[in-house]
Amino acid sequence: MLPNYKLVSRESKVENTVIRVGDCTIGGGAPVVIAGPCAVEEEEMMVKLACKLKRLGVHILRGGAYKPRTSPYSFQGLGVAGLRILADAGRAAGMPVITELTDAAHISDVCRYTDIIQIGSRNMQNFGLLQEVGRLKFPVMLKRGLSATLEEWLLAAEYIMAEGNREVILCERGIRSFETYTRNTFDINAIPAVKLLSHLPLIADPSHGTGRRELVLPVARAAMAAGADGVMLEVHPNPDQALSDGQQSLKPEELVSFMGELTNNTRLHTKASA
Amino acid sequence: MLPNYKLVSRESKVENTVIRVGDCTIGGGAPVVIAGPCAVEEEEMMVKLACKLKRLGVHILRGGAYKPRTSPYSFQGLGVAGLRILADAGRAAGMPVITELTDAAHISDVCRYTDIIQIGSRNMQNFGLLQEVGRLKFPVMLKRGLSATLEEWLLAAEYIMAEGNREVILCERGIRSFETYTRNTFDINAIPAVKLLSHLPLIADPSHGTGRRELVLPVARAAMAAGADGVMLEVHPNPDQALSDGQQSLKPEELVSFMGELTNNTRLHTKASA
Amino acid sequence: MLPNYKLVSRESKVENTVIRVGDCTIGGGAPVVIAGPCAVEEEEMMVKLACKLKRLGVHILRGGAYKPRTSPYSFQGLGVAGLRILADAGRAAGMPVITELTDAAHISDVCRYTDIIQIGSRNMQNFGLLQEVGRLKFPVMLKRGLSATLEEWLLAAEYIMAEGNREVILCERGIRSFETYTRNTFDINAIPAVKLLSHLPLIADPSHGTGRRELVLPVARAAMAAGADGVMLEVHPNPDQALSDGQQSLKPEELVSFMGELTNNTRLHTKASA
Amino acid sequence: MLPNYKLVSRESKVENTVIRVGDCTIGGGAPVVIAGPCAVEEEEMMVKLACKLKRLGVHILRGGAYKPRTSPYSFQGLGVAGLRILADAGRAAGMPVITELTDAAHISDVCRYTDIIQIGSRNMQNFGLLQEVGRLKFPVMLKRGLSATLEEWLLAAEYIMAEGNREVILCERGIRSFETYTRNTFDINAIPAVKLLSHLPLIADPSHGTGRRELVLPVARAAMAAGADGVMLEVHPNPDQALSDGQQSLKPEELVSFMGELTNNTRLHTKASA
Repeated sequence: MLPNYKLVSRESKVENTVIRVGDCTIGGGAPVVIAGPCAVEEEEMMVKLACKLKRLGVHILRGGAYKPRTSPYSFQGLGVAGLRILADAGRAAGMPVITELTDAAHISDVCRYTDIIQIGSRNMQNFGLLQEVGRLKFPVMLKRGLSATLEEWLLAAEYIMAEGNREVILCERGIRSFETYTRNTFDINAIPAVKLLSHLPLIADPSHGTGRRELVLPVARAAMAAGADGVMLEVHPNPDQALSDGQQSLKPEELVSFMGELTNNTRLHTKASA
Repeated sequence: MLPNYKLVSRESKVENTVIRVGDCTIGGGAPVVIAGPCAVEEEEMMVKLACKLKRLGVHILRGGAYKPRTSPYSFQGLGVAGLRILADAGRAAGMPVITELTDAAHISDVCRYTDIIQIGSRNMQNFGLLQEVGRLKFPVMLKRGLSATLEEWLLAAEYIMAEGNREVILCERGIRSFETYTRNTFDINAIPAVKLLSHLPLIADPSHGTGRRELVLPVARAAMAAGADGVMLEVHPNPDQALSDGQQSLKPEELVSFMGELTNNTRLHTKASA
Repeated sequence: MLPNYKLVSRESKVENTVIRVGDCTIGGGAPVVIAGPCAVEEEEMMVKLACKLKRLGVHILRGGAYKPRTSPYSFQGLGVAGLRILADAGRAAGMPVITELTDAAHISDVCRYTDIIQIGSRNMQNFGLLQEVGRLKFPVMLKRGLSATLEEWLLAAEYIMAEGNREVILCERGIRSFETYTRNTFDINAIPAVKLLSHLPLIADPSHGTGRRELVLPVARAAMAAGADGVMLEVHPNPDQALSDGQQSLKPEELVSFMGELTNNTRLHTKASA
Repeated sequence: MLPNYKLVSRESKVENTVIRVGDCTIGGGAPVVIAGPCAVEEEEMMVKLACKLKRLGVHILRGGAYKPRTSPYSFQGLGVAGLRILADAGRAAGMPVITELTDAAHISDVCRYTDIIQIGSRNMQNFGLLQEVGRLKFPVMLKRGLSATLEEWLLAAEYIMAEGNREVILCERGIRSFETYTRNTFDINAIPAVKLLSHLPLIADPSHGTGRRELVLPVARAAMAAGADGVMLEVHPNPDQALSDGQQSLKPEELVSFMGELTNNTRLHTKASA
């Protein structure tokens, strides 16, 4: 064990960290499904989608209001207006919501309107931002950087925890490799490795991890089988017209069989580990 | 679909290719487990291990007689003597056997003593060797190269098939990335991608794909959940004294619960896809 | 040419951008050498080192006051006190200074005490920070991210320029690959590629690009031969006792022959391109 | 130093290995230029090109007769007919020739018609082939594998030397990274690293190392500045009609200024190291 894994390591805390958000627990054994569009778009669509996802069994609603985009000329998200729409949709459907924080200046808005702060891949080593959210009492989901080693990722979580915030969720979302068929290479090895090294809950993001709609659910199943505590899925009522990431978004109805299997697999897991 | 995927592609042949080896079918729906030591070592150990694996439900015995090693001064395998031991162990246990072919000069020996020829990662683009095994009527398992794209891998299979041999099995065994915690990065995305692109059966090798004993079974579970037709596992009665790859080898008894889950999951899969 | 390269591209501005800092011009044909310790340490050492570097022909003094470190428990830099020491050393030696900005909260301090703002690799896609420095009239050196493509890097520069700041310098500092012998893989291809794609000046950082002292000067020579406008070198009077990056730091006296060659090569270049 | 570097290491032999081929010495201080088309095509073109290259100062003629191609349906080279054309062109121009060996079955033909055997990237760990050429008394140029570490590459050379052949030349040709702008990432760090670790001569191949014509000469200059013993360049009289690798091939006339600089730089190097 690295000496710098003071708070993040399984040695420092043997039992799994369980994070409660609304009615939902993350890391407590029952698989968690987070779903929603890449970016928050129009309000009516968002409320309708949230209610549909809730009926399908989804636990947490996602949606980006501040979108970090490679080009300065791409759609950058709706900002506070997007946060309000997300909060309204979550309330209408009775689901907690998660959104990405890209700038310390938006912390108070993000905390007002949402339930979990997401720190994205590009900011995994934005240490100032990590320390800012470390000073909150608020759940933070930390995505792995595009080329971050497991060690760098866990130490980024340590940055948050060292400031006092212990409600950290890790999210594997694929790493950059030479392969071009997929947008990223989902690092399935990271799932059991992180669960052995750390007590923190771990969510898989196969939407970014594959970048191709047709691969998302098989890799979601794989991540659950490898020990993830849940998955985050990009879902859009009309993926081909999504303002971003349409090629990796599922339609809500495509979740149906996966949600069913998840329930079955949980039972199986319980039996297997009993 | 690439125009060069003439024989390998799902378009060229819609139904799954099923390969029969002894009593065992690969690609026919029932998961296949291949297990055994990295290198064939001593005969008595090998026979005992094979019988134990057979009792655990393993279908095919693996063992290397010609070992491609990074250093010319490392143990290079027992050669023909190793092939004979492998064949004896397979016969004693009633299992077909698989071994790696590294040189066209060994083809007749490998075909005499074994049931499936493995082409290893380092030889994935040894096109002369691919063409030689392409002229056989003999099952060939083609491992993905360390830094081969999906396209290069499928075209390597095309090399074999273009010579006439249609009994090709693909094997994902991890790719090289920047991550150093694991020996390789198992490319879970490749599992559903290859099953969509090609009709060929696909085996996962989480032993090489992770390089760490404690990650092998979770990643094996993941690969099956993602749609693999089976797994290949390095198993040694005494991993710490293995002549090669001990750190990624399991003990036979560690397979017990995995073999059980596999049976349950199959049922589940059958229900899910029905 | 990508449509999003509005300001950064060679098409948008054919002639090289030349940036003036004190007596020094970057991108104007004469090679620029930036040197100094990874982190600003003690004042007396810093002043002495700066004067020594100036005598050797170094043009710009570097030193980190805010150090982004993988672990929260590593030395994080001296902060404002470090900026003051850096400014004093620069003044004593008659050299402009450059330091890394990691947080928008430090902008006014960094602008008060230094001449060039460095945006480090980990913040290459910290878009909020890019936009903040984009609103300044102040030279900014933008390091390439660890796994950033050329396109992502140029678009990060576009983020700065789109806000109005046209004084952007690019810095290639190595990318992450599978190779572990070196800390990073210096991407020499990026040097001529960026000079073709963009009018912005380009500095090479072979200290981070190799991570090994004995490789720094050969790769510095290579970068200049490939068309870089200058190099940035980590130099420490006593590398083995440096508070960070000692293994990639040179002693000042090791620069002597390199500085001489640089003068000769310039002449050569002039002849060659005449 | 790794214990397995028995013959390849600088410790085992302090002075540089110098290999003589015809009038040409490789590794003896004077830079060597190897040039020619990717694949041997038509005889008259080849003879004309060889004579032109000779007049430009090129030392060794290259041309592939056995082409390892990703697809079985791509042009695979002219085989023995190509070897004869290459030999004729070399004789006509008074230059030694080099060609790739892909299969041990072709060794006697390749040795009859050429002066240096090239082992390509895909065969860097084809250990049987390495051992076969290791038993010859014939110069062998060993290209680095697409994802081979420096250690694996040097140990591949050790495989050849361990069989008795000490005339090994190393060739850096770029590694596979996430960057897609260039075909490969030329690993400039490898140049000084290998020259420190080993006494063997080292050639740079910026044609494959970049995959883009406009980057070839800048990276060739960089490799020489970093300490390479020479460069290998793909040259074709009409790159857009080349049967392979046209996009990375130069026209002969594009070599003129580079060949001149090389002479000047040699003098410079001599002065600098004196």
